Amino acid sequence: MSYEEEIRQTAQSAAEAARKLATLGSDVKNRAIVRVAERLLLGDGDAIKAANKKDLDRAKNKGLSDVMIDRLTITDMVLRSMSEALIDVASLPDPVGEVSGMWRRPNGLLVGKVRIPLGVIGIIYESRPNVTADAAGLCLKSGNAVILRGGSEAINSNLAIVKVLQEVCREEGLPEGAVQMVPTMERDAVLEMLKLDQYIDLIIPRGGERLIRFVVDNSRIPVIKHYKGVCHVYVDESTDMEMAEEIVFNAKVQRPGVCNAVETLLVHESVAPEFLPKIGARLETEGVEIRGCEETRKFLSSAVPAIEEDWSTEYLGLILAVRVVKSMDQAIDHISRYGSLHTDAIVTKDYANAQRFLREVGSSTVLVNASTRFSDGHQLGLGAEIGISTTKLHAFGPMGLDGLTTQKFIVYGNGQIRG
Amino acid sequence: MSYEEEIRQTAQSAAEAARKLATLGSDVKNRAIVRVAERLLLGDGDAIKAANKKDLDRAKNKGLSDVMIDRLTITDMVLRSMSEALIDVASLPDPVGEVSGMWRRPNGLLVGKVRIPLGVIGIIYESRPNVTADAAGLCLKSGNAVILRGGSEAINSNLAIVKVLQEVCREEGLPEGAVQMVPTMERDAVLEMLKLDQYIDLIIPRGGERLIRFVVDNSRIPVIKHYKGVCHVYVDESTDMEMAEEIVFNAKVQRPGVCNAVETLLVHESVAPEFLPKIGARLETEGVEIRGCEETRKFLSSAVPAIEEDWSTEYLGLILAVRVVKSMDQAIDHISRYGSLHTDAIVTKDYANAQRFLREVGSSTVLVNASTRFSDGHQLGLGAEIGISTTKLHAFGPMGLDGLTTQKFIVYGNGQIRG
Repeated sequence: MSYEEEIRQTAQSAAEAARKLATLGSDVKNRAIVRVAERLLLGDGDAIKAANKKDLDRAKNKGLSDVMIDRLTITDMVLRSMSEALIDVASLPDPVGEVSGMWRRPNGLLVGKVRIPLGVIGIIYESRPNVTADAAGLCLKSGNAVILRGGSEAINSNLAIVKVLQEVCREEGLPEGAVQMVPTMERDAVLEMLKLDQYIDLIIPRGGERLIRFVVDNSRIPVIKHYKGVCHVYVDESTDMEMAEEIVFNAKVQRPGVCNAVETLLVHESVAPEFLPKIGARLETEGVEIRGCEETRKFLSSAVPAIEEDWSTEYLGLILAVRVVKSMDQAIDHISRYGSLHTDAIVTKDYANAQRFLREVGSSTVLVNASTRFSDGHQLGLGAEIGISTTKLHAFGPMGLDGLTTQKFIVYGNGQIRG
Repeated sequence: MSYEEEIRQTAQSAAEAARKLATLGSDVKNRAIVRVAERLLLGDGDAIKAANKKDLDRAKNKGLSDVMIDRLTITDMVLRSMSEALIDVASLPDPVGEVSGMWRRPNGLLVGKVRIPLGVIGIIYESRPNVTADAAGLCLKSGNAVILRGGSEAINSNLAIVKVLQEVCREEGLPEGAVQMVPTMERDAVLEMLKLDQYIDLIIPRGGERLIRFVVDNSRIPVIKHYKGVCHVYVDESTDMEMAEEIVFNAKVQRPGVCNAVETLLVHESVAPEFLPKIGARLETEGVEIRGCEETRKFLSSAVPAIEEDWSTEYLGLILAVRVVKSMDQAIDHISRYGSLHTDAIVTKDYANAQRFLREVGSSTVLVNASTRFSDGHQLGLGAEIGISTTKLHAFGPMGLDGLTTQKFIVYGNGQIRG
């Protein structure tokens, strides 16, 4: 069988499974998810670690970086956190079947909207094999079938995790095809998959910008994604300096390698002389390199001159671009020009400025007086996160179970016809 | 300037306009929409009719069909209905700024979701020039900038309508670039436009299946669309026969050329002997051709034998495919296999079957005891309709003003940082 035919059959059986999954009760879905969580901590965990060792050996032979190897490694702690994440998902409310509104039309028709699964979700991701269990758990919970395509470096680990998922689905009476992996590592199989819009309803790429652009450029299926997170903190004219310092420091340093870490600090000119030396000294203690505009460098002599490119760069590391602005207008303009619609924050004591920033900054998460690091499905209280979207369609910002569902119209009539 | 450069500038200025439109108050937007409505009934209406005459003359010279010419024609009545539609849109509630939920996190963060415009919407459509005013009105109301690309046969009419829209925007202080047309009829300009995902947030194609497939195959921007409407009415075992007859007749005959007209009738075998002769005779009075399965033809000798292709055909005319099914299971299977996720209805007296049909049929609008013709934004009470989506992402089913917006997260903190 050609790989085109293989991936087509995978997608087709996923679509069939999706029809059945859509009507399953929460108890059935939750039981399966909990069962997977349990098995990860039993003998299956050892099998997964053994498979993972094969991937690690190959990765070391290939000379993968320590960071990559760290991401790839499945320890007991990783298994435990995978298991706990699944238990959390099982305990969340089931979004499917929720009727979010119902109204009566003048002709007596009762019209409502009810939440339903999307159908089949394709997830294309890199390295971290824990995504396999996380994503499958969220998809099952929301009644969707899932087709997983992990990186080739994690193939053995992913196969071992999927084996557990599929065995549990079988035992618990979930449909065949509910959880599948792309059946070949043939690169063109992904291209083929991205064309199967008659079977697959959504593609979520998770990984570097290159992977995501490849998916967007080649997909006929809707894609939810964010390319990068160039997040800003704007320190306003009227600011609690200590709060601003804590927030900027936390947003940059607490976990610099993630998309909701701050990359550019904007400071109102009236507070720059006082604030910049303070935050500069604080960041220096953690070895943060500052790239500043001309004005910034007047108050922070250690700062490297920023170039145009710095304003749109996601460093994912201990570098911070800093710009002094003349007004909040200029700050909002800067964010609108260089930002990535991901997450931006203002630190201010001014009521009107807070409200205006929330209104006028078009990013998917806008915060007042809090660290950008809160832009996360769990932190915002969505209970889970399948990804963050900066595409304005469908979901915008952190995406939980709701983002894995849609709504259909249901209509109760008693014989109405159109005149 | 090359057409690539032209369309790029159009999109860029639309994105700039979108930023300003997003923060406009409802009163400003409504005033502009009402002003356009007024001007369509004054001297501008004559200018539009004169421009339309040029299009009509050319269309007649080219030998366009009567149906096409009818769609293209702008009469006083068409102007009046365009004007009324705009007044209706102005009177609808503004979706922008609606906070649909707000919750407090354990750390004191107050997290909410607020409705915002999508940004820039590209509308690609065929023939009917009234779409120009309708779509622009809906986009302005929802705070979006719009780039219109009508058919070449309506170019003069569309230019005349857009001229009014742009003049009013200027007079009422709406940003330049809020309403624009693709600046060239060069066919490749559309291809170019579909790549500008840094400026354009959504593409809505409205027209035949060929146009829509072209857009989907070439767009890097999310597309909302439906290819076709193969709608079903299922007449259940336990049915009020008279009601079923009225509903099927209405769904087929009241306006057969539209996407929510019924194309396939499914009849439970236990009522087929009584129901089929009745509905057959009734449909015959309107000249409806029936294409039936073998079982159907036992009770309707005038029916043509249906072939496999009939089950997935959108006739858009006075033809109805009819199939006798052994059970509701078979009916739901048929709909799932051949349907288009558009609109399907059941006629039944049975409570459990009604509920099950609503739950298990995956289409965007599912009705009990009502005509499929109600699957329409106005009829369902959305106030307006920009299109119908059978893509499960973002909007599914008739799309009103809400479908032209998305939600962002807003977060009120008082100094929270992540631990």
